Amino acid sequence: MSEAEIELTGHIIDSMILPKVFGAVYDLSGEFEVLEFRIGKTKNDYSYTRMRIIGKNRQHLDTILAELQKLGAVVTEKAVDAELILAPADGVLPDDFYSTTNHPTFIMINGKWVKAENQEMDKAIVVRDGQPYSIPMRKVKKGELVVVGNKGIKVTLPERSRKKEIFSFMSSTTSSEKPTLSLTRMIAMEMFELRKNGGKIVVVPGPAVIHAGAAPALSELIRMGYVHVILSGNAVAVHDVENSVYGTSLGMDLKTLENYEGGHRHHLMAINLIRKAGSLKEAVEKGVIKSGIMYECIRNNVDLVLAGSIRDDGPVPDVITDVMEAQDAMRNALKNADLVLMLATTLHSIAVGNMLPSTVRTVCVDINPAVVTKLTDRGTYAIGIISDIGAFLPRLVQELWQIEGTF
Amino acid sequence: MSEAEIELTGHIIDSMILPKVFGAVYDLSGEFEVLEFRIGKTKNDYSYTRMRIIGKNRQHLDTILAELQKLGAVVTEKAVDAELILAPADGVLPDDFYSTTNHPTFIMINGKWVKAENQEMDKAIVVRDGQPYSIPMRKVKKGELVVVGNKGIKVTLPERSRKKEIFSFMSSTTSSEKPTLSLTRMIAMEMFELRKNGGKIVVVPGPAVIHAGAAPALSELIRMGYVHVILSGNAVAVHDVENSVYGTSLGMDLKTLENYEGGHRHHLMAINLIRKAGSLKEAVEKGVIKSGIMYECIRNNVDLVLAGSIRDDGPVPDVITDVMEAQDAMRNALKNADLVLMLATTLHSIAVGNMLPSTVRTVCVDINPAVVTKLTDRGTYAIGIISDIGAFLPRLVQELWQIEGTF
Amino acid sequence: MSEAEIELTGHIIDSMILPKVFGAVYDLSGEFEVLEFRIGKTKNDYSYTRMRIIGKNRQHLDTILAELQKLGAVVTEKAVDAELILAPADGVLPDDFYSTTNHPTFIMINGKWVKAENQEMDKAIVVRDGQPYSIPMRKVKKGELVVVGNKGIKVTLPERSRKKEIFSFMSSTTSSEKPTLSLTRMIAMEMFELRKNGGKIVVVPGPAVIHAGAAPALSELIRMGYVHVILSGNAVAVHDVENSVYGTSLGMDLKTLENYEGGHRHHLMAINLIRKAGSLKEAVEKGVIKSGIMYECIRNNVDLVLAGSIRDDGPVPDVITDVMEAQDAMRNALKNADLVLMLATTLHSIAVGNMLPSTVRTVCVDINPAVVTKLTDRGTYAIGIISDIGAFLPRLVQELWQIEGTF
Amino acid sequence: MSEAEIELTGHIIDSMILPKVFGAVYDLSGEFEVLEFRIGKTKNDYSYTRMRIIGKNRQHLDTILAELQKLGAVVTEKAVDAELILAPADGVLPDDFYSTTNHPTFIMINGKWVKAENQEMDKAIVVRDGQPYSIPMRKVKKGELVVVGNKGIKVTLPERSRKKEIFSFMSSTTSSEKPTLSLTRMIAMEMFELRKNGGKIVVVPGPAVIHAGAAPALSELIRMGYVHVILSGNAVAVHDVENSVYGTSLGMDLKTLENYEGGHRHHLMAINLIRKAGSLKEAVEKGVIKSGIMYECIRNNVDLVLAGSIRDDGPVPDVITDVMEAQDAMRNALKNADLVLMLATTLHSIAVGNMLPSTVRTVCVDINPAVVTKLTDRGTYAIGIISDIGAFLPRLVQELWQIEGTF
Repeated sequence: MSEAEIELTGHIIDSMILPKVFGAVYDLSGEFEVLEFRIGKTKNDYSYTRMRIIGKNRQHLDTILAELQKLGAVVTEKAVDAELILAPADGVLPDDFYSTTNHPTFIMINGKWVKAENQEMDKAIVVRDGQPYSIPMRKVKKGELVVVGNKGIKVTLPERSRKKEIFSFMSSTTSSEKPTLSLTRMIAMEMFELRKNGGKIVVVPGPAVIHAGAAPALSELIRMGYVHVILSGNAVAVHDVENSVYGTSLGMDLKTLENYEGGHRHHLMAINLIRKAGSLKEAVEKGVIKSGIMYECIRNNVDLVLAGSIRDDGPVPDVITDVMEAQDAMRNALKNADLVLMLATTLHSIAVGNMLPSTVRTVCVDINPAVVTKLTDRGTYAIGIISDIGAFLPRLVQELWQIEGTF
Repeated sequence: MSEAEIELTGHIIDSMILPKVFGAVYDLSGEFEVLEFRIGKTKNDYSYTRMRIIGKNRQHLDTILAELQKLGAVVTEKAVDAELILAPADGVLPDDFYSTTNHPTFIMINGKWVKAENQEMDKAIVVRDGQPYSIPMRKVKKGELVVVGNKGIKVTLPERSRKKEIFSFMSSTTSSEKPTLSLTRMIAMEMFELRKNGGKIVVVPGPAVIHAGAAPALSELIRMGYVHVILSGNAVAVHDVENSVYGTSLGMDLKTLENYEGGHRHHLMAINLIRKAGSLKEAVEKGVIKSGIMYECIRNNVDLVLAGSIRDDGPVPDVITDVMEAQDAMRNALKNADLVLMLATTLHSIAVGNMLPSTVRTVCVDINPAVVTKLTDRGTYAIGIISDIGAFLPRLVQELWQIEGTF
Repeated sequence: MSEAEIELTGHIIDSMILPKVFGAVYDLSGEFEVLEFRIGKTKNDYSYTRMRIIGKNRQHLDTILAELQKLGAVVTEKAVDAELILAPADGVLPDDFYSTTNHPTFIMINGKWVKAENQEMDKAIVVRDGQPYSIPMRKVKKGELVVVGNKGIKVTLPERSRKKEIFSFMSSTTSSEKPTLSLTRMIAMEMFELRKNGGKIVVVPGPAVIHAGAAPALSELIRMGYVHVILSGNAVAVHDVENSVYGTSLGMDLKTLENYEGGHRHHLMAINLIRKAGSLKEAVEKGVIKSGIMYECIRNNVDLVLAGSIRDDGPVPDVITDVMEAQDAMRNALKNADLVLMLATTLHSIAVGNMLPSTVRTVCVDINPAVVTKLTDRGTYAIGIISDIGAFLPRLVQELWQIEGTF
Repeated sequence: MSEAEIELTGHIIDSMILPKVFGAVYDLSGEFEVLEFRIGKTKNDYSYTRMRIIGKNRQHLDTILAELQKLGAVVTEKAVDAELILAPADGVLPDDFYSTTNHPTFIMINGKWVKAENQEMDKAIVVRDGQPYSIPMRKVKKGELVVVGNKGIKVTLPERSRKKEIFSFMSSTTSSEKPTLSLTRMIAMEMFELRKNGGKIVVVPGPAVIHAGAAPALSELIRMGYVHVILSGNAVAVHDVENSVYGTSLGMDLKTLENYEGGHRHHLMAINLIRKAGSLKEAVEKGVIKSGIMYECIRNNVDLVLAGSIRDDGPVPDVITDVMEAQDAMRNALKNADLVLMLATTLHSIAVGNMLPSTVRTVCVDINPAVVTKLTDRGTYAIGIISDIGAFLPRLVQELWQIEGTF
């Protein structure tokens, strides 16, 4: 038998934290005893609890404590300096490495809680010059100090929103039985406010945006100033250029729905065009492409990252074909993002979701509810909108026009 | 060995009829020999073929011929009067009864091809006073003349559309990778033309129309004169009334997305309200409901059929709880329909699909591609639009406004 | 300002009840004050709280209290006799009627808590000879005593399972990323235990069971004694008979996957066969059908309810075509059910879900995750298994064979 | 007005080629005239046609001819040597480059039809030493001879299978309403025959194979000798190792369904383990992993290609992080494949589909019908099985055991 004390403070009941703590102890076959409990008397007051956690042995207790820590519990006895061990080789962690959540995390160093930079899920924490950083395993250098065990680590979970707004619906089940127009209006309002206040909006579009005929809508969003970063791939770039130059997407005329001869040919011709010009930027400068998402990104200085995939034809020269390099570029572009819109793409949505701290507001629009389920199963906090991107994006633009006209 | 001759005339190559005939003989392990073949020289000319079909024995041959007949083949030796046998009991057919397709069908009676009335899939053909009718099995009376075997029966398949329009895309795979706005515009144009020419439009909405916030759009379509019949069920009526009276759908405010106390209570209160008023019509007249789909149907004399299901709460008094009576009412309302819009409902879409001749233009909008697949697997010719009804319907209204403004 | 006191007892933290109470007050813009709080010291102890709830006015307060009541709160001042009002007309409730949850509910009558019979969601409670019954609105007779308001009503929510077993996973997100074989084994174990202890198992199959080739597996389950009730519809009966008599399903040979001539013809012939025999029972007795699900039901005295729908061809004479009569028959057959298996059917799953008290264990197997989402959104507590019924059912049988062999 | 003659030979009617030719001319607003037509008299005879195709001008005619060529038409006047133009720069094609289909293609060089090597969709054809090769655009070197225009090119389409077997069902609509066990048996039979005859089987598994608990089944398939190549990614390798070492998948115990503390931690620990060992191969040799898919691949000399993606954690050292290098490795491993099984993965299925000639038999198993639709929309000929991989794979193994036991 081995035991330890933990403390929890905050809206721990209505944010479901306390029930989760009870559940975790239960699931892991531990025992608990509530030593002290002060409930927030009104809905603005914090609650506080001090509990004893009991495990079968030290290892079992540590397993439970690690889990509770992820829920925001501070292990009282462990509010000591975090334990640091040297990485045994480049890209290899010490066995007992601490793996991160996507919540803001503090490490105790020399008796002080220091917030880790670049918070991201499933990373290691390395301490450089007294500052903890959340970094991917492969970037750890031999001999760097890596946080191990579970002492001196504090995680702060997002609490239930006190403001009545769309992001308080996050936790509810995603369902296609939601009123699309109202959801769209709320997201438009959020974007309007963010732009006004200098916020940063990242858009992650999939090729369905173009097939579904929504490229003009996304182009308009860029021109209106609602897009600061686009994270996407070769297919989006190519289909967008095909659409701009030939008016088709995989050979289908997006206006008349007629199939042109050589659908795939247009697609390859678009790639060849860009390769010939040298890059998307040069293609814009040389007047080869005169409209579309890529054009607007380049004209409006939107930060554009195109990551490679094994499905790529071509690819266009702007694509980063090494996926680890691509991840780094995406991470960089995501810094300080306030809102991320994921539009009809599974691969990029999950990749981006993995890189986001839980504090970033995320919206995932997809016609397939399984995409949203996958995303949230992996720990990304996202509002799921089960809709057709070809209908959703034009409506979002209309809502923004209306809001701008009103204010 | 047993053999027979068949003839085929029409655009039998580009309408895929000849390949299907070859395929059917092949699938059923028969043999064929082409005796005569005249190909249409240009795309407007008919082709003609005369073939010998060979089966292992008379029964095998009949099996093959029955299949070819469904594809439009006329069995030459069988261009004699159809064989008629008396029904052995009420609602029971003779063993060898002919079962119908949903294509226009002609029966030879006294040496003349007479077109069957009320063409519908999976029915029997009964001859009354020399006129063939396609009717459900359960409506056959003992002693009525039922068409049996495969003599004297001619089916005419729809041919590939010569006009370049949306309904020529019917055959293509349903995919969510289609440009929604263009599809919507084409359907709007079709509706505009139909209304102008006195066509009849039937709408088959599911409850998701209301949950998704599209009730105002459907109400507007009714007011604009684009809806002549609504075929639906209790849930649509109840959610629509709930939405009109309380502004909620299953208790969620469709504007603010907040959940009211007692979602289900609003829902039941809506039912109780209508039951108290006596019927939807009386509720409108007494001023109990003042807006919404049901209200507009009643105010605009739209033919409304509400069919019962085992999921129904209540139900409201207007619901026909006997499903066979409900089928009859639906059949009646569907007569002479030109266009059917199926909106986010599996049960009603398939039920209505079963009742439609193949000559009626059908559009099925659903977020789940499996619904469209199910529908077309069962032989209904429908354009599938994989979209979110909450975004689709408002856009359809916008397109119609624009078309009306333009013309 | 208007206020009231409520009490909550039980595992109110780990069963998420207290957080939900806080959330509900918050959502409805009320205020609360915790007057007393005793937390269960260990995981087996109950917690208790007494709270003051504050609304803007009496009506607002009542709205909040009604919601809290559904979560199991007992309104202290309201632990008085429930208020009863006479129904104004047959099938019409008093305006302020209490609408039920699917949780066990107690009504205070003459100072005593009496449990309502036939607990079901979205019903009214009528008191007959001092005994409360949960009944559908349409069954209330003029002048019967109906529970109104929110006094004297107590709801008991199911608590988090203390036993580590499959039904404790209920609350987790349904996802296709679950190990199918392990889930199947657990359900098999549950069925084995239930049968051993005289439990009652209800199966609700959809037509996909037959199309997917799982009719032999379901037949075997019946023979093995694991099925006490089957709730289904015309399509299942017809496809099953078609399969037994002709070896096809909608005309496709389920073994060779070849399409026979006249798929729909087999289907109609099967219906005609049963209509001619008089009923399924007579068809079995006369030797017309000699195997299959229907055959096994009749031979093994399984309680079979076939409910009508507007999609039905025929139907076979055993189908109850009036949906309200069908509901009553289903309700009757569901009494004292311990486990319900919903197999690949949306309509019947939701209909049955609406009739079940929350205490019945429910498993929903469907290839489409949206079916499970719909079911649980409507308040049914079900384990969702996203699988292909054609692979799932044969495996379930294998697992049961193995368990039986082992014990 | 401009015109040309084409010829078509083969089972052009029952393979739908002639109808497609008529349709293509029609879609592109051209005209045709049938000059000669000889129909195959019986089902084994070839048909032959010679047609005049008429376009508005030379360019329009060329557009039509290019399309007909893809359908197998030989442009009579163009049965001259193919036109070759020098590539203007590395990785850039001449403007009028010919883009390939996935069907066997012949190029006329010095008056002889020479078959292109490495046939793949959407590639260019380069002639090296008189031998045409289908290659990706980026691999063309400046100054290489690239086929342009549409002269001297002949495409041969796959014809309707004469043998009654599963791959003749290819063309039918994918639907979940298919009998899973029969489909599984047919595929098992196909695999058994292939193995016996020295055929090559490629498996393309997604991570759902492991989450769904099917890793033991795939491992068994490898041991039984039914897998010659595995094309996959980092996630499959990592989840498989996690499962082998810890018995969990993303932290969930696949047997008991319990969640362990730190699901993601196991996942990261598995990666760290492999990185520490140096590679998967070294991990097997050092005894770090002792079972699972990766283990069996290495022990049984299965050709394993792991391609990188931006979703990857880690990755393990065996992953090829440059997607273009990964494509090349996949292409290489796919050479001479006879059967490809795509198991619950969208990204890899489509990537592999793009690399396959149309002559390779392909099976795609996924719970989501949209994956199969996407695959076939892009031109891959695949049998779609809509099933749960966790139930499908174990059954496939059982069928193979049974077949092996029988023969």
